[in-house]
Amino acid sequence: MDFLQLVLKRQSVRSYTQEKIDKESILRCLEAARLTPSACNSQPWHFVVVDEPALLSEVAKAASDGGMNKFAKEAPVIVAVVLEKMNFIAKVGSLLKNKDYCMLDLGMAVEHFCLQAAEEGLGTCILGWFNEKKIAELLRVPKGKRIPLLIVMGHGNDQTRNKIRKSMDHVSSWNIYKHQQK
Amino acid sequence: MDFLQLVLKRQSVRSYTQEKIDKESILRCLEAARLTPSACNSQPWHFVVVDEPALLSEVAKAASDGGMNKFAKEAPVIVAVVLEKMNFIAKVGSLLKNKDYCMLDLGMAVEHFCLQAAEEGLGTCILGWFNEKKIAELLRVPKGKRIPLLIVMGHGNDQTRNKIRKSMDHVSSWNIYKHQQK
Repeated sequence: MDFLQLVLKRQSVRSYTQEKIDKESILRCLEAARLTPSACNSQPWHFVVVDEPALLSEVAKAASDGGMNKFAKEAPVIVAVVLEKMNFIAKVGSLLKNKDYCMLDLGMAVEHFCLQAAEEGLGTCILGWFNEKKIAELLRVPKGKRIPLLIVMGHGNDQTRNKIRKSMDHVSSWNIYKHQQK
Repeated sequence: MDFLQLVLKRQSVRSYTQEKIDKESILRCLEAARLTPSACNSQPWHFVVVDEPALLSEVAKAASDGGMNKFAKEAPVIVAVVLEKMNFIAKVGSLLKNKDYCMLDLGMAVEHFCLQAAEEGLGTCILGWFNEKKIAELLRVPKGKRIPLLIVMGHGNDQTRNKIRKSMDHVSSWNIYKHQQK
């Protein structure tokens, strides 16, 4: 499968079968994430893979905060993505240039994980809305560390959908910035 | 090439040949970026591809701010990544959950671009340190819009290097957060 095909295959999956996930597949997703580039090679991420049934059920409840993301309760695995400290050089750069490099880095790592999952034939859904405090407690994430995202993961029930995106003219231009309407 | 091979092939390239880039390749990189997922499908990105020689030379100068990234002057293309506004729902979510979703989104889109470039046999280097104000002027990016990253792009002179990364035990754990030393 070439990369553009993989990009088209990856989608937010919101319905999962009961089928378990092969541990080797999860390890390859972690490996893809581990190899992600980052500002000053800071690698400010830690992935907590939750697959122990009783704990998973609690995490899924916290992932469905406020009645959203109920499909999280169907998934055999949920991964919590913990933001770790940037190294000194990346932190200084972030401050001087007023940019949050670590969130850029984290986005890349999470997408590496999900693209590898798509290659494994697995579905994922990245969640930004959940009860972060509760999940930090359940997974014993030290106080002060953030969990910006969760990845829900399993064998998907969804068919591949066409992607709804802005047009190429809207998201790109040549030499001079020209932002056109959708 | 499977995805993990592509991940291993993508690296920060800091030396470029004079060879031009095929426009079709650039368009496929833009397409891979365009299809990136984002919070609430906000797609808060715009890519300005700079390949016009006189302008490129000025942009490369601003990319080499303070004597860094001098290799940017060798590259036949530099892409400025402009942060666009999130849609209303993503903005509300970001505020309520105190998370910068748009930087997560932007990281994913930039990495899609660079992975497609690697598949095309092209080298890239993501830059976070550059004279943003000067580049905004050169490309006529409207005031108030940020340019968090540049992508330098061309045919690379570098050999594929082994990646230096934290160990799997350091960046992942199962069910309970366990952060180990490298």
